Amino acid sequence: MAADNRQEFRETLLHQLQDALHLQNIALSTKLFLDLHPGDQVEVFELLSNEQQDYLISLLEDSDVAVLFSHQEDDETLEAVKGIEVDRLADIIEEMEPDEAADLLGDLPPDITKEALEQIEDSRDILQLLKFPDETAGGRMTTDYISVLSSATASHSIEVLRKLEPDTDVPYYIYVTDPDNKLLGVVGLRELVVSSPDTTISSIMDEEVFFTKAMLDQEEVAQIMVTYDLSSLPVVDDKNHLLGVVTHDDIMDVILEEATEDVYKLASVSDTDLEPDSPVKEQIKGRLPWLFLNSLTALFASWVISNFEGLIGQVAVLAIFQSVVAGQGGNAASQSVAMFVRAIALGNIPQNTTIKLLFRQMLVGLLQGLCIGTIVGIGVYLWRGNIYLGIVLGLALVGNLILAGIVGTLIPLGLKAVGQDPALASSVLVTAVTDSLGFFIFLSLANYFLPNLL
Amino acid sequence: MAADNRQEFRETLLHQLQDALHLQNIALSTKLFLDLHPGDQVEVFELLSNEQQDYLISLLEDSDVAVLFSHQEDDETLEAVKGIEVDRLADIIEEMEPDEAADLLGDLPPDITKEALEQIEDSRDILQLLKFPDETAGGRMTTDYISVLSSATASHSIEVLRKLEPDTDVPYYIYVTDPDNKLLGVVGLRELVVSSPDTTISSIMDEEVFFTKAMLDQEEVAQIMVTYDLSSLPVVDDKNHLLGVVTHDDIMDVILEEATEDVYKLASVSDTDLEPDSPVKEQIKGRLPWLFLNSLTALFASWVISNFEGLIGQVAVLAIFQSVVAGQGGNAASQSVAMFVRAIALGNIPQNTTIKLLFRQMLVGLLQGLCIGTIVGIGVYLWRGNIYLGIVLGLALVGNLILAGIVGTLIPLGLKAVGQDPALASSVLVTAVTDSLGFFIFLSLANYFLPNLL
Repeated sequence: MAADNRQEFRETLLHQLQDALHLQNIALSTKLFLDLHPGDQVEVFELLSNEQQDYLISLLEDSDVAVLFSHQEDDETLEAVKGIEVDRLADIIEEMEPDEAADLLGDLPPDITKEALEQIEDSRDILQLLKFPDETAGGRMTTDYISVLSSATASHSIEVLRKLEPDTDVPYYIYVTDPDNKLLGVVGLRELVVSSPDTTISSIMDEEVFFTKAMLDQEEVAQIMVTYDLSSLPVVDDKNHLLGVVTHDDIMDVILEEATEDVYKLASVSDTDLEPDSPVKEQIKGRLPWLFLNSLTALFASWVISNFEGLIGQVAVLAIFQSVVAGQGGNAASQSVAMFVRAIALGNIPQNTTIKLLFRQMLVGLLQGLCIGTIVGIGVYLWRGNIYLGIVLGLALVGNLILAGIVGTLIPLGLKAVGQDPALASSVLVTAVTDSLGFFIFLSLANYFLPNLL
Repeated sequence: MAADNRQEFRETLLHQLQDALHLQNIALSTKLFLDLHPGDQVEVFELLSNEQQDYLISLLEDSDVAVLFSHQEDDETLEAVKGIEVDRLADIIEEMEPDEAADLLGDLPPDITKEALEQIEDSRDILQLLKFPDETAGGRMTTDYISVLSSATASHSIEVLRKLEPDTDVPYYIYVTDPDNKLLGVVGLRELVVSSPDTTISSIMDEEVFFTKAMLDQEEVAQIMVTYDLSSLPVVDDKNHLLGVVTHDDIMDVILEEATEDVYKLASVSDTDLEPDSPVKEQIKGRLPWLFLNSLTALFASWVISNFEGLIGQVAVLAIFQSVVAGQGGNAASQSVAMFVRAIALGNIPQNTTIKLLFRQMLVGLLQGLCIGTIVGIGVYLWRGNIYLGIVLGLALVGNLILAGIVGTLIPLGLKAVGQDPALASSVLVTAVTDSLGFFIFLSLANYFLPNLL
């Protein structure tokens, strides 16, 4: 199947499906939908109206809905389950992989989760997974892996493969444990295939297998899998018992989520599920608190300016240029913050380098300040004909860009040091400092040079 | 191997290695380094001084250096090759996978690339890969995959596997072609293992295999692999001939790179290789042009204010609050831009929805403006005792936040429509509009209410 032009393909399919649903043509509706790859099912489903979605779900088998839910984003599934009775929901969840089922149950209201769990026959795997927070290795892992004892033979292992459902999440690795389920190693299918049938697993397994603890944060799990080019990473408990496996597709989702989170937090959007077409109410909930915080910091900056009200009354031209200083500081600080946020996300900040990095950002600020300060200073001198105005502006820019380097370093590194997400050093917080102090530096300098500015 | 605490492990190793290099203990230096996983080799290597790096490379075998280079970021490798003679470089490149070799050669100065290519014995694969730009499916793919004819048997395919070097990049899939090398399907090792030896490949292959054209942009390749949970994606030419395979580890790198690119562009940093500890010169090269652009837009905003200089001379208090309006607009617009940039990166913007999305962002702007405008308006009235000042500020905020919704929608969508990266709608560009028009709206309103403000 050509993977390009899927969007066009989906649009066509969407219209056919909508027509079929509208005509209540059950056979055609389900056929059109189920012929799609689950990855396309999700995209097409999202574009249906709420009524169409509910109607389509009522037409599908439990197992088909389970496949759809497993491929959806968590918030989309939560939206879709609203129209489903708990009895049916329990049946659907029984058809899902244990890790997907646990994800969904963990997000549902507690009373519905409890009711659904009571109706699920074998809920042991799910209950075990529910113990781990969503955003950890344990929360991300699947329990649907293949394992054999180290004493098994190659032919026995192949027999195990033959008997298993073909749709395990980790189809190309067999994990090797002792009788107590402690992880000993891993065998790739390739080694298995090219071994003679009576080879014992212990002689072909790779003991140098990477593993991780269940409580490790998903971002660190992603870093590990990227660093070591792993397509799966086994998860163990404190005593090395194999609990599950995190796979590359989960990790791709993690990387995408974390990237969105970085972009959103830096832009002062707190709900990472928001999209441009999210309901207005949701958008305001995820955005307004930051604007409100910005009001407070902006009014603080206003208070800083208000201390120079007399000065501005005498030299109104200052009002024209005060924002240039503040704006440049905010931009330069955002540049530093962006670099720190990504470097931290990618694990690229070595320990004990804060001082060195701080001085480097200050030096960059100084040099950028000298360049921009000179250019803007000269420009303003030529425009307004007052050399002192140019000097005040130039000096203020140098000062505020050095400050931007300091703030842009210390806020993200400080947030990381206290265990917070460095991306919280969003424009609102950082510019609160560069604005207030930018105005202060500029207007103080102007006050000092007042006789020359009149 | 426990995957947690790698940083600590690496620090210890680094010190041991530095000591060994300092003492010129060749055996120990190479042993310490080569015992590391390539993922750790890269991290430790980066922390050595330039002299230590060059010395270590001089101690290693060509094939070991090839492994190191294959795991490094492109810019790190470019730095490391500077100390290597072309003769040796050619030998090292011969040991690299063709796709990694092509990546490196494509980044080297043309004369060195030419000289190296002349010394490489079999450069056909590399030359073919050099045809494709780095950031396309063709540029990302490996040519090191396994393929068999559809008429082959399972046992023959296993024999092919047995003979091949074990370190192919796509170890768990066998691609099926016709005698003309046209892609027909794929067989997972699992199906191969559980089939009887004389089954023909055509009877067990999956014909529903996703594939892509070589020139597809890597970001779209990543979207496809994430959407369909693929661990590898074959790449074909216009006539469906199999050219290579893109694998999940390449795609994880792509996703990380694109995420960094989004964050950087939004924060006005143009060089995505920059890190907080990059050389000052590089940082200034990637950051200063944007600050310079910001100077121009800021001076334009200053010019807008200068048209109201007489007004500010009469009512200096306006200078105190003008930045509140501009700042809120900039923040709100950044929120919209962040959502659009990620939605576009994730392929989540359906066609023909621009008008709907524009109205939604304007509505969000209106509602946020009413909330923030009311709060700030009342706050300023209480602070300064002039109700009209509060009204002017409140109305200006409503106006500028609606404007922010418009700008925050149209700039990223417009950039996408003309084939540019929507993340270019960085704070500098968007706030140029929200600043200038923010000042204009506020000061015009103030002018209108002038008698009430005196």
